[in-house]
Amino acid sequence: MAWLALVLLWWAAPAAQAIPGPDFSALFGDSDFIEIIERDEGLETRPTGYVSQDAEPDHVFRIDLDEGQVPIGQGVVYDGFLIDGKLPGPTLRVTEGDIVRMEITNSGDVMHGASIHAAYTQTSKHVGHILPGQTKSVTFRATTPGVFMYHCAPGGHAIPMHVMFGQYGMIVVEPRDKPYKLGADLGQEPDLKLYMLQHELYASGKEAVEGDASYTAFNGQLFRYVENPIPVRPGDYVRMYFLNVGPNLLSTFHIVGIIWDYVYWQGHPEALWPGGQTVTAGPSDSWVIEFRIPPEEGAYTMLDHGVGATSRGAIGLLDARSDADRPSEILAEGPSREPAEREELLGEARRVLSPFGIPDADTNPVPARVDRPVRFGSDIEEVVIEMKGNAFYPKIVEVAPGTQVTWVNEDVFTYGFGETSGVHNAVAMSGPQSFATSMLAHAERDSVTLTEPGRYEYICAPHPYMQGRIVVRDLD
Amino acid sequence: MAWLALVLLWWAAPAAQAIPGPDFSALFGDSDFIEIIERDEGLETRPTGYVSQDAEPDHVFRIDLDEGQVPIGQGVVYDGFLIDGKLPGPTLRVTEGDIVRMEITNSGDVMHGASIHAAYTQTSKHVGHILPGQTKSVTFRATTPGVFMYHCAPGGHAIPMHVMFGQYGMIVVEPRDKPYKLGADLGQEPDLKLYMLQHELYASGKEAVEGDASYTAFNGQLFRYVENPIPVRPGDYVRMYFLNVGPNLLSTFHIVGIIWDYVYWQGHPEALWPGGQTVTAGPSDSWVIEFRIPPEEGAYTMLDHGVGATSRGAIGLLDARSDADRPSEILAEGPSREPAEREELLGEARRVLSPFGIPDADTNPVPARVDRPVRFGSDIEEVVIEMKGNAFYPKIVEVAPGTQVTWVNEDVFTYGFGETSGVHNAVAMSGPQSFATSMLAHAERDSVTLTEPGRYEYICAPHPYMQGRIVVRDLD
Amino acid sequence: MAWLALVLLWWAAPAAQAIPGPDFSALFGDSDFIEIIERDEGLETRPTGYVSQDAEPDHVFRIDLDEGQVPIGQGVVYDGFLIDGKLPGPTLRVTEGDIVRMEITNSGDVMHGASIHAAYTQTSKHVGHILPGQTKSVTFRATTPGVFMYHCAPGGHAIPMHVMFGQYGMIVVEPRDKPYKLGADLGQEPDLKLYMLQHELYASGKEAVEGDASYTAFNGQLFRYVENPIPVRPGDYVRMYFLNVGPNLLSTFHIVGIIWDYVYWQGHPEALWPGGQTVTAGPSDSWVIEFRIPPEEGAYTMLDHGVGATSRGAIGLLDARSDADRPSEILAEGPSREPAEREELLGEARRVLSPFGIPDADTNPVPARVDRPVRFGSDIEEVVIEMKGNAFYPKIVEVAPGTQVTWVNEDVFTYGFGETSGVHNAVAMSGPQSFATSMLAHAERDSVTLTEPGRYEYICAPHPYMQGRIVVRDLD
Repeated sequence: MAWLALVLLWWAAPAAQAIPGPDFSALFGDSDFIEIIERDEGLETRPTGYVSQDAEPDHVFRIDLDEGQVPIGQGVVYDGFLIDGKLPGPTLRVTEGDIVRMEITNSGDVMHGASIHAAYTQTSKHVGHILPGQTKSVTFRATTPGVFMYHCAPGGHAIPMHVMFGQYGMIVVEPRDKPYKLGADLGQEPDLKLYMLQHELYASGKEAVEGDASYTAFNGQLFRYVENPIPVRPGDYVRMYFLNVGPNLLSTFHIVGIIWDYVYWQGHPEALWPGGQTVTAGPSDSWVIEFRIPPEEGAYTMLDHGVGATSRGAIGLLDARSDADRPSEILAEGPSREPAEREELLGEARRVLSPFGIPDADTNPVPARVDRPVRFGSDIEEVVIEMKGNAFYPKIVEVAPGTQVTWVNEDVFTYGFGETSGVHNAVAMSGPQSFATSMLAHAERDSVTLTEPGRYEYICAPHPYMQGRIVVRDLD
Repeated sequence: MAWLALVLLWWAAPAAQAIPGPDFSALFGDSDFIEIIERDEGLETRPTGYVSQDAEPDHVFRIDLDEGQVPIGQGVVYDGFLIDGKLPGPTLRVTEGDIVRMEITNSGDVMHGASIHAAYTQTSKHVGHILPGQTKSVTFRATTPGVFMYHCAPGGHAIPMHVMFGQYGMIVVEPRDKPYKLGADLGQEPDLKLYMLQHELYASGKEAVEGDASYTAFNGQLFRYVENPIPVRPGDYVRMYFLNVGPNLLSTFHIVGIIWDYVYWQGHPEALWPGGQTVTAGPSDSWVIEFRIPPEEGAYTMLDHGVGATSRGAIGLLDARSDADRPSEILAEGPSREPAEREELLGEARRVLSPFGIPDADTNPVPARVDRPVRFGSDIEEVVIEMKGNAFYPKIVEVAPGTQVTWVNEDVFTYGFGETSGVHNAVAMSGPQSFATSMLAHAERDSVTLTEPGRYEYICAPHPYMQGRIVVRDLD
Repeated sequence: MAWLALVLLWWAAPAAQAIPGPDFSALFGDSDFIEIIERDEGLETRPTGYVSQDAEPDHVFRIDLDEGQVPIGQGVVYDGFLIDGKLPGPTLRVTEGDIVRMEITNSGDVMHGASIHAAYTQTSKHVGHILPGQTKSVTFRATTPGVFMYHCAPGGHAIPMHVMFGQYGMIVVEPRDKPYKLGADLGQEPDLKLYMLQHELYASGKEAVEGDASYTAFNGQLFRYVENPIPVRPGDYVRMYFLNVGPNLLSTFHIVGIIWDYVYWQGHPEALWPGGQTVTAGPSDSWVIEFRIPPEEGAYTMLDHGVGATSRGAIGLLDARSDADRPSEILAEGPSREPAEREELLGEARRVLSPFGIPDADTNPVPARVDRPVRFGSDIEEVVIEMKGNAFYPKIVEVAPGTQVTWVNEDVFTYGFGETSGVHNAVAMSGPQSFATSMLAHAERDSVTLTEPGRYEYICAPHPYMQGRIVVRDLD
């Protein structure tokens, strides 16, 4: 099977111009960098994605950044940061060469922003630092085919934080003239385009920073495609657009009973390998994977073969039946739900997973370990609470009157102040006594001693969603 | 060195037919899917592995799934799930195009099953859900060359669990007509075929789910090839078939003093790269690695360059001497031992590693951390025991009379019931009082309060190998 | 864009001889293995790196191995093992075909050694086991282009330990005649050669073995290129030599606003892929990454997209301005500092990170979690201290008089004795009572009972840098 030589001849053949010859004035205005632009247009490698912010877009995508709750299955609600009220956010699709305009609105209470990996051009200064109520936009040309991540990126320390808190999605750039190889082999389009995004969810900022995930999922819900297997037919040609968002764990994706026909690194049609049982993807790595459903009915199980992770939510099924009523595509975004259905699921939940807050006890009868109070006896003179991943750890402590409570900032990016910094403090919002620590950079500490029994609720002033609680009472 | 162009010419040359033209009636019977089969036989990519279950096999492999103990070196015994009484199970080898029949017997006490990554066809319905005492089989054609994993796969939650508990092995599909490149360069077969399987061992289900490995190993024994270095000669051509089973950790395999001549992703002869100091493999990733022993005698150290992992067992030596009496192959399976030798090693052990059970104290004088009792003072009103990875955590608690003991199910795949589900309960087997919790799905809880001092042994009824212990006594 | 076919024609063209035809007597002396050498010189794959130890070198690199302290930013000092007083050690650069002589001096108090991944030949017997005060050397020919790691390697257990404690650096072998592709496309040398080494730092041996990193960094300092962004100009051609040292974590390197033009696995110019948003690198994996700065000014943020890791130190900035005064190269080594600057930084530190020692309290006012004392009440009869990663855990315990203190050796490579072994004991250096445990292999234990109140300092005799402390006092 001399397939590689054939691929090469096919690649070597004159192609229709993949990237339209640019209309310079429309695309680039009067850029100061016209020499660079002209150089780049003539290269064998692609031009970058730079165009004038006034260029006429082929696509306008509007997304909305906010904080909120979503049901994720198995009786669990996630309370974090969302895109369009979902986790993951919407699946965006364009074709190589398209001009794309992203309009990003912050409907939340804290600063947000965006990073779009399909854009090979400056984006930070256009769509970073979006204040509550503000909309910002960026225009670029999608010049590299592939499967890319986009995510919230307010700047600095907030880039990793907002990714860990849930704001991400998939953007796909389809190749314009050089198709993926299995389609050429079969002479058809895929029967199923399967957009799959793997991601992790965390119960606390500390656990997020340390990669200690509570759950993993495909497309926003625990065992989503076990509860609702994806129908396919024997012989179907499936193209999977796979993105491992992470934000911390490796994924080695596998399907029981399937060996890949071709895999394309990061989804680039010219970066392919034949065969293989898995693809390995670190956080923000992606693959296009092409395979056929074998000529036998039955279930084909999809999983991350890092099976400790898989057992926490990342299993799904392809259900092959000859008469299956199958969809032509599955999108890599959280489920769309009617408000009534959403409310019902929220009401039935047994656990709320909140990486930085303290869930209400009545909505969280079976809390994650990190949301259970930690009790210190009266023999303990000092209790240390770490600030890590924009969260307090332990979140809830019970101490005897007169115990010294010390906060140590373990977040490391402590330049500046506010949402884009990891500088923290602890300020009482309620309780018998008032307190406020100084602002703490990395590896700085401050203490208070609480003598009055009672319940103290406190926050970090620069990150007011960070919640901590101290209960002072006699413990022995 | 225009090696790549040469490779391409070589690939482009007409090849002997890699996959024999099928005798349709013998291979496929009267399948309903004959059109798919005919389409697939004519593709540039390979046909899938589907054949009739009645097709005449070239190889019949019989493997036996069971529970039991194996010595793993350094005074440690592993007590988990095994294949053919070994960990890893036997190394299986076939040639591209061969018809393979796997006959799988369950000699154990709980449901087992199999997933065979070399089979590009439906296997779950043939060899999942194998009951104790039962034998099931599956027949397939091995159409894709490479290095593959096989493992126990009863279904659902039990797939990750049985992999983490030790049931896995390597199956290699040798290319039929397109050899690996270094052999063509040198004009010879390898002097040494080195089948190397890296894997991890866990002391508890919780640690397995969270990837907190106690040990790592090559081919089933801690520092196996430090104790018994593999003899080679200067100049030898070595082909390594490397599989990282995981089940959780990444491996970046390296040999001190060696740069690879060629590496083949997943062992596919057409997916090669030259050079490089390491190969990176997530769980179930594989590589064929080809290199030469340099013309100087001495030891060449093999290790995972994730050195925290390596220090727990994954180091070995190639010992190059000009007069070495070297083997032609090393298999990727646990050591074969005479019963007397095995008994002696079991008797001498200082530690038993059991991911779900509680080892007897007399065979386990230096227990792993998770097997040491956790004591809670009389000031503690409630003790929470997590069910995670088909194990209780903590395994052993000591509490004061009247303490409320609460179980929370942290396993997430809690569909159905029995071995293939993560639904758990806690049922007393002995002790002064009887108790049984309700069946718990994910994030459900139930409690008992034990007032009678004494020792309580309990299990999970759907997974009776899960063992927990509560000791009620005055602690202060 | 038929770039691949073009690459192939370019590769297929007759090349200038990449590796100079060897002068056999000068390069190989009177080796016993002349037949192997002659065979290897004629292969399409490269010869190995073997040459006579008397061969005349093109480069002599002298490096010095020692123990000591370096400031790493954010008020933190690292106290571990260093090369040339730095962390990482110096960046070494040679060209394919060069003869390289490494002269390695041990200026420290414990055994050191070296492994050089650019050397495809026996090195262990030449530069392993270097005693304090000793210098050893090895000569090799760098025959494979790429980006390689070098590191301390005394032998056995000490190989992973010394890597985790900080002794590593980058050695680059530039291709001689086959350049990286983007240079050919652009017809120029890179405007910036950016040597980037990602690594982790650990607060204790246990955390190192388990991969629980305190900090991550690019080139030795937390957020080094946030504090001092790297100046570039729009349109610049950047070639990055990226090495993830680890020693435990995966890195998926990404730059906000950049899609790669070409990536080269392990830096080999013939192992390339186009496009992509990230490269994934396990410990000791490397890539050459080529890209252009887009034609728009602004900051381009470099990070590991495993964002939990990134938030601990691995973020940097490329700052694009049209008038930037940009360097032609950035080296992958720790900052060079004047003695006065270094002393000032050491004096200002708030935390000392020491993987095996106990930092002085006055230099370490905000210790890492593992350096805070762990207190056990008088109800605890036995306290277990683990020996793991050449460190005691907990490092500091406070116990009541009469408590049994038990050490368990959790290091697994416990062959032999001394620095290259993980055999440990605990020997009192000061305190009211004297004690010394027996030498402990893996999973062995020994105990002492301390009745005299006071402070006991102890070490491990074979690894005298391992420090532990027991404070005996009434605790309730």
